[in-house]
Amino acid sequence: MTNDKLQRLKELLGEVWDLSMAAAVLGWDQETYMPPGGAQARGQQLSTLSRIAHQKFTADEIGQLLEDLAGDAADWDPDSDEARLVKVARRDYLKATKVPSDFVAESSKVASLAIMAWREAKGKSDFSLFRPHLERIVELRQEYANFFAPYDHIYDPLLDDFEPGLTTADVQRIFNALRPQQVELIRAIADRPQVDDAFLHQPFDEQKQWDFGVEVITQFGYDWNRGRQDKSAHPFTTNFGVNDVRITTRLEPDYLGTGLFGTMHECGHALYEQGIAPELERTPLGHGASLAIHESQSRLWENLVGRSRPFWEHFYPRLQEVFPAELGNVSLSAFYKGINRVQPSLIRTESDEATYNLHIMLRLELEIALLEGTVKVADLPEVWNAKMQEYLGVTPPDDAHGVLQDIHWSMGSIGYFSTYALGNLISAQWWERIRADIPNLDEQIRSGNFADLLAWLREHIHRHGAKFEPQELVKRVTGSEIDPAPYMRYLKQKYGEIYGL
Amino acid sequence: MTNDKLQRLKELLGEVWDLSMAAAVLGWDQETYMPPGGAQARGQQLSTLSRIAHQKFTADEIGQLLEDLAGDAADWDPDSDEARLVKVARRDYLKATKVPSDFVAESSKVASLAIMAWREAKGKSDFSLFRPHLERIVELRQEYANFFAPYDHIYDPLLDDFEPGLTTADVQRIFNALRPQQVELIRAIADRPQVDDAFLHQPFDEQKQWDFGVEVITQFGYDWNRGRQDKSAHPFTTNFGVNDVRITTRLEPDYLGTGLFGTMHECGHALYEQGIAPELERTPLGHGASLAIHESQSRLWENLVGRSRPFWEHFYPRLQEVFPAELGNVSLSAFYKGINRVQPSLIRTESDEATYNLHIMLRLELEIALLEGTVKVADLPEVWNAKMQEYLGVTPPDDAHGVLQDIHWSMGSIGYFSTYALGNLISAQWWERIRADIPNLDEQIRSGNFADLLAWLREHIHRHGAKFEPQELVKRVTGSEIDPAPYMRYLKQKYGEIYGL
Repeated sequence: MTNDKLQRLKELLGEVWDLSMAAAVLGWDQETYMPPGGAQARGQQLSTLSRIAHQKFTADEIGQLLEDLAGDAADWDPDSDEARLVKVARRDYLKATKVPSDFVAESSKVASLAIMAWREAKGKSDFSLFRPHLERIVELRQEYANFFAPYDHIYDPLLDDFEPGLTTADVQRIFNALRPQQVELIRAIADRPQVDDAFLHQPFDEQKQWDFGVEVITQFGYDWNRGRQDKSAHPFTTNFGVNDVRITTRLEPDYLGTGLFGTMHECGHALYEQGIAPELERTPLGHGASLAIHESQSRLWENLVGRSRPFWEHFYPRLQEVFPAELGNVSLSAFYKGINRVQPSLIRTESDEATYNLHIMLRLELEIALLEGTVKVADLPEVWNAKMQEYLGVTPPDDAHGVLQDIHWSMGSIGYFSTYALGNLISAQWWERIRADIPNLDEQIRSGNFADLLAWLREHIHRHGAKFEPQELVKRVTGSEIDPAPYMRYLKQKYGEIYGL
Repeated sequence: MTNDKLQRLKELLGEVWDLSMAAAVLGWDQETYMPPGGAQARGQQLSTLSRIAHQKFTADEIGQLLEDLAGDAADWDPDSDEARLVKVARRDYLKATKVPSDFVAESSKVASLAIMAWREAKGKSDFSLFRPHLERIVELRQEYANFFAPYDHIYDPLLDDFEPGLTTADVQRIFNALRPQQVELIRAIADRPQVDDAFLHQPFDEQKQWDFGVEVITQFGYDWNRGRQDKSAHPFTTNFGVNDVRITTRLEPDYLGTGLFGTMHECGHALYEQGIAPELERTPLGHGASLAIHESQSRLWENLVGRSRPFWEHFYPRLQEVFPAELGNVSLSAFYKGINRVQPSLIRTESDEATYNLHIMLRLELEIALLEGTVKVADLPEVWNAKMQEYLGVTPPDDAHGVLQDIHWSMGSIGYFSTYALGNLISAQWWERIRADIPNLDEQIRSGNFADLLAWLREHIHRHGAKFEPQELVKRVTGSEIDPAPYMRYLKQKYGEIYGL
């Protein structure tokens, strides 16, 4: 009886999963290959898919099955796939049933058009092209939050979509603890002689950049039989099941950093999805635990691995071979310092590890203000620029380098940004644990061997998919909840050495 | 009241349309970029989409609306979009309701896996890898036909899906009239000295082939803002609405013909879809009238335009410029004869206009035999090879060049092939009409001007979408039903000149 119900539940959830995977394919195509003419119809298609997926997920039959199974599950191993499936599906169901399907469809349609508008607006650095779309998105997000009233904070329901179980107050507490330490570190660095990274800013053949990136992530363990890489304006990872996990990258002809670290970053996301236990596929457990946990993976490969000295002790000779004219005269030590240069700057995705979190804090404050209505969309460019000056001491020359730089808001993803900073913090928590479990990790990395590292991540994190909420997963693996201390220890040690603090 | 019902009907049909467009995107991706690992899940996704689309289309609400509106429509202009919409949707509805949704989903899943198996089987030239898939497909097609029993012939319901209103007897009658004339022509040509086409078989830089093809179809009027071209093993055209109509092509490094004519062929399909009246989008009228009508467009651009002397009077100097070493010493006249060389051969897609239809007749007979059960799938390679010898005097060296050459059966598309030959016939019927309406057509083509031709096609054919059944459309435009005579006149004149018959 229970088994029949579980089977039926899985069938119904599998159908919803397929619809959302289909939508992901349409989204991938939209960002990579779709001709401009396709935008309007694509919006409609995505809207229809999301409405039907939502209708199917919120069907009474699923609700009834979940109620029945939640009773039965009291006797099951609470960590079993089945118990977790019922728990997570029920949580998602209770949230989803508060939102009308038409609202979901409308949001999806608005986002599809907004993405195209954002792209054009960014290209022309003209915020006015994006403004009406963003206004509509903010309205919709407010409306969305209100489906969950009463709440402690209007931002809570949004954040919870990306970080199940986390509240605005949690994030603010973590950020409040972090901010002064980050600021202090940046000041200390600013007092020291700056390191040179001019060699990163010169023409680098794009095909060679691409090929080198491919070489690195192949060595990381990215499975090309179950994925591929394409180009897009804003790099992302997407998946259509655990066996088709795709990444995109962006190469700049005159700067090595974008493609190099962007490719490693997306690969980190992709390794996570490729490592989820296949038996969780087609269920709500078949994806990463949360965006912060996801980001902990991408940042781990990008920064803790990809910006480390042992990594470059292995790869730098190879990179010099690929770019002999450009890097032949740059020593390993100079290269290592250059890629870790701390310099308050305009673009989040290219900011260094010391200043990155300040970009996030800025966005979190703006998102909260937009939701609260204390900042109007029309005033956003101005407020953005003022905050950039206040936090980082820089002012964008135009909106393309300011408020228009990120795609997220155009996708309707408000509540998302803080997960990036949380991911940074968590990545360092994993790292301390990994170092304890793999004492010769540096040596392994120095010899280009990532197998133990990947196996550790698979074992402790990847395979579980979304079985555990983010705070629970962090606690299970590290013994503590999300905590900024390991990240600050990591930064202080790294920059202490580089800047001689 | 009527308006409300029409509005509601359009909403419901729009939803079904979106689902089928989403499936088309997934299909496009499957053929172009999907990594091998994605196949299994893709099959499941397509299966779910097709099942839901079928469920939604066959919903009682649509049936009731169609019944009500069919009554109202008695008073409408029978050629109005609305009257035709109700008529066509009702015809499709009555067919679709005979088929269970689970059957549709199963067929879709079987096809997805069969396509992958076919690809591998063709690559390895190993029919046994494809055989079990094809057996299952034939079973499913038989089962499908039987949903429509009683029928005059088991093949009728299959054919009707591609050519609404046409029966097996119709096609056999047309083919029986055509076959002796084609055979006679081929024999007459075989008695004449052969023309040389060796110059087509030499290394041609692939990028230059690609670029030249792009140049040609841009001049035809293909709208790149509403489309794109990619590579695939088997070229095809697909669309996700009238504003996103994509083609694929295949280039061979050692043979110019494949890419050149394949690109023009797919462009012909795409021009059709790009020319459908936008107001028909998201309804069952928003695509081509039938596959034969579609093929009449692709073959018109590929052959009647692209293999004509006036076309090459314009483009040949340019092609010589692109390939000076390869074609510098080949005269226009020699080139023209070479690309029109008649030579019974193994591969349908590369066969000449005189022998092409025999490839189709062979497939039609085999399909009918498979459906009737008089030929078993296991015996197919042998029967294929025997028939090739009988019809064309050639025997495939392996199954990749024989029974495995075409993708169609793997997609579950049985009943499809005859539309290719019908398309040839219809293309010549249009052509006689166009010549009468545009007396200086040759001159226009000779100066690379295709605007009047495209405008004529848009006006008489494209914009109508699926408003008229194929026989009806042909009759409205040309005054006669599908008729092999114009095609035979065209072939005899062309080859009479080339071979001096």
